[in-house]
Amino acid sequence: MNDELGMQIAYEEAVKSYEEGGIPIGAALISAEGVVLGRGHNERIQKDNPILHAETSALINAGRVDAKVYKTATMYSTLASCFMCSGACILYGINRVVMGENRTVQGGEELLISKGIELINLNDEKCYQLMQKFIKEKPHEWHQAHPEEFEG
Amino acid sequence: MNDELGMQIAYEEAVKSYEEGGIPIGAALISAEGVVLGRGHNERIQKDNPILHAETSALINAGRVDAKVYKTATMYSTLASCFMCSGACILYGINRVVMGENRTVQGGEELLISKGIELINLNDEKCYQLMQKFIKEKPHEWHQAHPEEFEG
Ligand SMILES: [Ca+2]
Ligand SMILES: [Ca+2]
Ligand SMILES: [Zn+2]
Ligand SMILES: [Zn+2]
Repeated sequence: MNDELGMQIAYEEAVKSYEEGGIPIGAALISAEGVVLGRGHNERIQKDNPILHAETSALINAGRVDAKVYKTATMYSTLASCFMCSGACILYGINRVVMGENRTVQGGEELLISKGIELINLNDEKCYQLMQKFIKEKPHEWHQAHPEEFEG
Repeated sequence: MNDELGMQIAYEEAVKSYEEGGIPIGAALISAEGVVLGRGHNERIQKDNPILHAETSALINAGRVDAKVYKTATMYSTLASCFMCSGACILYGINRVVMGENRTVQGGEELLISKGIELINLNDEKCYQLMQKFIKEKPHEWHQAHPEEFEG
């Protein structure tokens, strides 16, 4: 699967979250063979849960995954992964992380790179515009979601 | 609250997980005033969920917490926090992290320190012995739980 197709799935999840009134960040965990192992979106607002980020939701949705599969999988996320989600990718030994953008906010980029994870930034304009729209509409929700860092 | 009392709550959670057949790691998020904001234990096995570690469970159980409260709170965990949970503490700007032990396995200690989070290791023998007992009984579960790093 090419990275634009992977990001399209993550973006669809971001739109789903936006339509639910949530923070529009989406993610997809995709195997080297192009199988979508898991997909999900930020559900902080929807489920009042501070750790349901896009990436962690995709990991939950993927369920039990063999260590060998994680090691060749790519995590797509519409926004740069925060420290928690970057740490989750490190914990499970995920091979690559592809982000839609990090103009809105930066996250654990340096940490991922320091752990040898390949990191790609697609600088995707539609991912960026969707976040900007949300932040303009719900600045307080956005602020609460990233007291120290940000909502990834 | 002194750190031994905070760790006692985390340890009670670890024992609860052990009794449920789960990985015996517990955590508690406690405010500067000694209020237990949230407590929880690893539920990877119980709920077949790869991101329900002790610390993330405690954060979920705490629910919406004001940024100012996080900033003066301490996260107690019976085992060194993995990269995901260390990242969650960074994300929410938690003030201090107190671990029961890191003889069983190390985690995001350097990352926490690099972010200015105060880190204490109690070298608690009962936390260590409970983990060793579990690993001896269920080595495969333990191995699956930390393909790259470990279960914190
Ligand atoms: Ca958040
Ligand atoms: Ca784990
Ligand atoms: Zn995140
Ligand atoms: Zn952890």
